Amino acid sequence: MHTVLKSKSKEVTINTAGPLAIIGESINPTRRKKLTACLLSGDMSYIFELAKSQIEAGADILDVNVGAPGVDEVEVLPKVALAVSENFDVPICLDSSNREALIAALRVMPGKPLVNSVNGEEASLNAVMPIVKEYGAAVIGLTMDDDGIPNDPELRLSVAGKILERAARIGIPVEDVVIDPLVMTVGADQKAGLITLTTIELVRKEFGVNINLGASNVSFGLPDRHTVNQAFLALAAGAGASCVITNPEKLTATIRASDLLLGRDVYAGRYIANYRKMVKLGLIADAGSGKS
Amino acid sequence: MHTVLKSKSKEVTINTAGPLAIIGESINPTRRKKLTACLLSGDMSYIFELAKSQIEAGADILDVNVGAPGVDEVEVLPKVALAVSENFDVPICLDSSNREALIAALRVMPGKPLVNSVNGEEASLNAVMPIVKEYGAAVIGLTMDDDGIPNDPELRLSVAGKILERAARIGIPVEDVVIDPLVMTVGADQKAGLITLTTIELVRKEFGVNINLGASNVSFGLPDRHTVNQAFLALAAGAGASCVITNPEKLTATIRASDLLLGRDVYAGRYIANYRKMVKLGLIADAGSGKS
Repeated sequence: MHTVLKSKSKEVTINTAGPLAIIGESINPTRRKKLTACLLSGDMSYIFELAKSQIEAGADILDVNVGAPGVDEVEVLPKVALAVSENFDVPICLDSSNREALIAALRVMPGKPLVNSVNGEEASLNAVMPIVKEYGAAVIGLTMDDDGIPNDPELRLSVAGKILERAARIGIPVEDVVIDPLVMTVGADQKAGLITLTTIELVRKEFGVNINLGASNVSFGLPDRHTVNQAFLALAAGAGASCVITNPEKLTATIRASDLLLGRDVYAGRYIANYRKMVKLGLIADAGSGKS
Repeated sequence: MHTVLKSKSKEVTINTAGPLAIIGESINPTRRKKLTACLLSGDMSYIFELAKSQIEAGADILDVNVGAPGVDEVEVLPKVALAVSENFDVPICLDSSNREALIAALRVMPGKPLVNSVNGEEASLNAVMPIVKEYGAAVIGLTMDDDGIPNDPELRLSVAGKILERAARIGIPVEDVVIDPLVMTVGADQKAGLITLTTIELVRKEFGVNINLGASNVSFGLPDRHTVNQAFLALAAGAGASCVITNPEKLTATIRASDLLLGRDVYAGRYIANYRKMVKLGLIADAGSGKS
């Protein structure tokens, strides 16, 4: 199944058959104090730096989140999303739980953005689904509802079903809903990884839709998080995820390796091209070919 | 299903339910010229160093391969395997295609070693299976036969079936056969990883036996092999492999992370213990907890 997103002049397809699509996560003030200052002052230079470095490192889509104390999302989300979109010509993932901010952004965005996110709560479905339909966007559907995040893959599957049913009823094509099965940290619950991986398999088998994953929560609180994130990405790709919100500077190599190992990279072309780019960008030392 | 191996006084179980068992691959002269010299001179000190560092880094079992030009395997395999076993009390994986060398080693080994390997060729089945039975060992069965290594998971499954059928006929318990689905490099064949992963799933589903994997061939000839090996290990664990022949100094962290993500590590205890040990051994810098 193909979820087609559009920027000014380009299309990006999230494809259940792979290769994995990468949504760059870095334009998000939760992880960057410097970004909050820029959002408050209206200075775009740092935001453009983040956009540039993520695209260079392999991002196909850029997440834009402007939620920070003192920032008026209704004013700032459309401004930042549009500026990034105009300057870099990649599809945008509008990351907000503020309906008015989403509407304001959807009104001005070129192409077809991805809305991040709706969930199975009635309030969320009612707030977000009509505007996704109205502006012809695609949407990420989180498998949680009014009872919280179920601790059982079958229940998460049910929430996915509820979101897809609501989309169908309102006239949103099924391919424009990307399900995110959510992941909690395995540091707090040893079953957290397995629950998410099983949910991915169930959703893929039952609905055949694209599946997105935020790939860094899983390792929260653990040492050497990178190794856990790498292993989780590979496991999620194997289970059937087709899209990842992540830091491409850190994880594109593992994403390309996973695609290669899953038979989606002829002559290892994408894997090797990414390696060369990483060496050029100084993200990895040139260890040469063939050494273990 | 449990494959129980024994050293002088300890048992190690390879369990289809996990966690992954690690067979340390380093006592193998193919990768180490220095080792060939030691095997020829009879100097055990370097061999003991390799044994010690692998066990410290997480090896549950040690592979012993003495095949090198000028080395008489029939004389040297039992000597080295016994010496390692006596000094380190871990089960040994006797790695040889020389029947007389295997017999000589099996005669003197304490406990219950693992024979590496038999395959579906008639000559191999006839040479190896009777001695596995006679000495009460366990055996790794490679999914190749007189026609070579099939390029199709269903055919590899058939070879696994042939090996298991022969084991049953001769009176070797099914749990004492560990199937190795083989992996070729994805640099030469883009489907190589997927074929192996699919074979793992098929063998697990059809026969429910333990599955071993050599985890470094897959990346041969590619740059940044470590990232490919890490991703492959995680994918293989997700598909159902329960045992890995690898370099534990490089890959135990990914193995522990995979177990953790597959719900087999209560409170992340093994993952964190391994992290602390790696820091102590200088195999990783102490990046502290909670940083990404």
